[in-house]
Amino acid sequence: MTAVQVIATKRDGGVLSDAQIDWVIDGYTRGVVAEEQMAALAMAVYLNGMQIGEIGRWTDAMIASGVRLDLSGVGRPTVDKHSTGGVGDKVSLPLVPLVAACGAAVPQLSGRGLGHTGGTLDKMEAIPGWQPLLTPDAFTAMLRDVGGVICAASADLVPADRKLYALRDVTGTVASIPLIAASIMSKKIAEGTDALVLDVKVGSGAFMTDLSAAAELARTMVGLGQAHGVRTSALLTDMSSPIGVAVGNAVEVAESVEVLAGGGPADLVELTLALAREMVQLAGLDADPAEVLASGRAMDTWRAVVRGQGGDPDAPLPTPRERHQVRATDSGLVRTVDARAVGEAAWLLGAGRARKEDPVQAAAGLLCHVRPGDTVEVGQVLFELHTDTPAAFPAALTALDRAVGLAEPGTPVTPSSRILQVIREPLDFVLG
Amino acid sequence: MTAVQVIATKRDGGVLSDAQIDWVIDGYTRGVVAEEQMAALAMAVYLNGMQIGEIGRWTDAMIASGVRLDLSGVGRPTVDKHSTGGVGDKVSLPLVPLVAACGAAVPQLSGRGLGHTGGTLDKMEAIPGWQPLLTPDAFTAMLRDVGGVICAASADLVPADRKLYALRDVTGTVASIPLIAASIMSKKIAEGTDALVLDVKVGSGAFMTDLSAAAELARTMVGLGQAHGVRTSALLTDMSSPIGVAVGNAVEVAESVEVLAGGGPADLVELTLALAREMVQLAGLDADPAEVLASGRAMDTWRAVVRGQGGDPDAPLPTPRERHQVRATDSGLVRTVDARAVGEAAWLLGAGRARKEDPVQAAAGLLCHVRPGDTVEVGQVLFELHTDTPAAFPAALTALDRAVGLAEPGTPVTPSSRILQVIREPLDFVLG
Repeated sequence: MTAVQVIATKRDGGVLSDAQIDWVIDGYTRGVVAEEQMAALAMAVYLNGMQIGEIGRWTDAMIASGVRLDLSGVGRPTVDKHSTGGVGDKVSLPLVPLVAACGAAVPQLSGRGLGHTGGTLDKMEAIPGWQPLLTPDAFTAMLRDVGGVICAASADLVPADRKLYALRDVTGTVASIPLIAASIMSKKIAEGTDALVLDVKVGSGAFMTDLSAAAELARTMVGLGQAHGVRTSALLTDMSSPIGVAVGNAVEVAESVEVLAGGGPADLVELTLALAREMVQLAGLDADPAEVLASGRAMDTWRAVVRGQGGDPDAPLPTPRERHQVRATDSGLVRTVDARAVGEAAWLLGAGRARKEDPVQAAAGLLCHVRPGDTVEVGQVLFELHTDTPAAFPAALTALDRAVGLAEPGTPVTPSSRILQVIREPLDFVLG
Repeated sequence: MTAVQVIATKRDGGVLSDAQIDWVIDGYTRGVVAEEQMAALAMAVYLNGMQIGEIGRWTDAMIASGVRLDLSGVGRPTVDKHSTGGVGDKVSLPLVPLVAACGAAVPQLSGRGLGHTGGTLDKMEAIPGWQPLLTPDAFTAMLRDVGGVICAASADLVPADRKLYALRDVTGTVASIPLIAASIMSKKIAEGTDALVLDVKVGSGAFMTDLSAAAELARTMVGLGQAHGVRTSALLTDMSSPIGVAVGNAVEVAESVEVLAGGGPADLVELTLALAREMVQLAGLDADPAEVLASGRAMDTWRAVVRGQGGDPDAPLPTPRERHQVRATDSGLVRTVDARAVGEAAWLLGAGRARKEDPVQAAAGLLCHVRPGDTVEVGQVLFELHTDTPAAFPAALTALDRAVGLAEPGTPVTPSSRILQVIREPLDFVLG
């Protein structure tokens, strides 16, 4: 077998055989298949797609490139959540301790942000003392004793994906449903969780702006999970406006703590509880997340999660050197607050990174004081921008220029639920 | 501008702007655009195509990556020929001295073979003493004094194509009409010839097995040439059976010398004269190639061409260590002699290379004693195989197993001309 033969099969619209997929993923992981060959194959997959059986085998081959964790010793049902990424999406921070407090173990292996969507590890690192790496023993002990952990994946978990994701990022092949599904599900299956809830984002702030494509991705991933013995379901959720008020790192930690304290923005609380209910149900537990949240037990678990990785839950969070308020120049009823524009502004202020080796500012970001359905008056504060590098203000202001859209007079704007659809049925799915 | 933006434009079916093409070719030549990024772009071009304006600009950008020769000082009209590659295609060897003897200067910059099609430089190197490199001054002097030269292109002629061709070879992106057209024409335009005749091969032994695709490639290249001030036409020629009798290196040199001596297989003579007539006409000369060939002046020029690069035209050519004859096991009328099977057999015998760093055997190859339209009897010799490595015989014999196809009794098989079509009109062509 040669790489050119495998590439030509997909280039010509054919179906990759199991042997071809195993060979090319293994060869790529070991460096026998070159980066440029995998780039050509990824573009052929992007343009010609993969059948569901191919995606399943591709996922298996990715998992086989590294270790597979065994969480059977933690003494609790394991359940995890994965979000496809959004703006202001700090949901993992309140969700992990909440579901842990309901009796599950949540092994949340997280990543860093790239571009306009934030990364959970970047947010957690705003907490003084917190560090993302855990030894395998400490990881298991945290799951057993506390029930939740938010940490970085080790390098030997799906190394093929680590290489392939970096390649896709520079070759314009990220937004391929088969490749996204295999990337996400290989990591979650290798992580060893019994159950998984997917938060598939739809809208301007998400990878997927189209509901039917998002549903196809969700159904593909639900099928991959179920075929691998992981009870999996998916929520399609609205990502057209930022989640909650805070977008950045320290500001999102603060807002997550508000939720754990029983407050926080209504849309963030709704989304957190919806995901928690789905996770608790998949884990086979009886607890009611809303009651557990109200009881304060989720906050106790949060503090234990933070302390377990060296963080001080009582330490003041970093504050920015400079703030700037953006005020409304028109009055009216708000129709849209564009998540992508807001995400890009936060990124430009220093909350995110352009290249994966760049640092982020813990205190950078913004507060979004307006949401669809609000009525605004001239002079009212729409956004509060935070940064340590005030030279970033002009570009961030430009990004926000058209972020807020007002409705034509007389148009009703009803604030709607973020939960668009729940998917528990996979695509027809046959593993090869 | 970023490489991902350029890739995404073509991936999404868009038209690359002039600025995008200039930037990506220049960046790739300088190493700023990575191999994996160009691989993804090449696959996107393969699958989504390029418009004629994009191909023109791509060709310009490739030319601009290196030097452009100026042949105005040679004192003769310059005209060149390019073949898209075939089996037994030694036509350049008699053609260059023949057209030179007609009064033109033929600056034939040639390549080496890869896979089942042979390379002109590999064939010429079978001549004792002959070497492919010439200094720029010697190149110009040969064109002025002798009128013909067959040599390797220097590294500073279209370096972008040198990189891109090697990349396409390992990424399954060779057989793309826009990329083939830009690759060929950038080199021929940069070479500085006034006129060019393209020999576009069609059939089992060629890249293009489909006449309409070959015609599209030919018209694209004719358009590119004419838009760059190079008088260009194309012959579509049949490559379903090997050209002449000899397939290999030394054996093809010997057959070429037979043509120059006034003999040689009829199909090879027909093809050589057809290309020579077209070249002479484009060069604006009056000579009749058939008369010049009969006069012996083409042979004189051949000897000068060989001597000019250190070769001894009177030295015996290398002979193989082993020969093996393949005899007919059935009798009947020959319908097909599959060029691809014959090319692969010659390649397996050592006449060609699998990787570009491999050596070739000067004496390896085969003689094909059968052609469509012949009647064969059981026991008659069909092929004579030559090699220095007799372990190669079994694989070569397997390749030849089904090379000869007999006609159903009663079917008429008319030996037909190799010249299928002459194309002098380009596609509608607008340079950006």
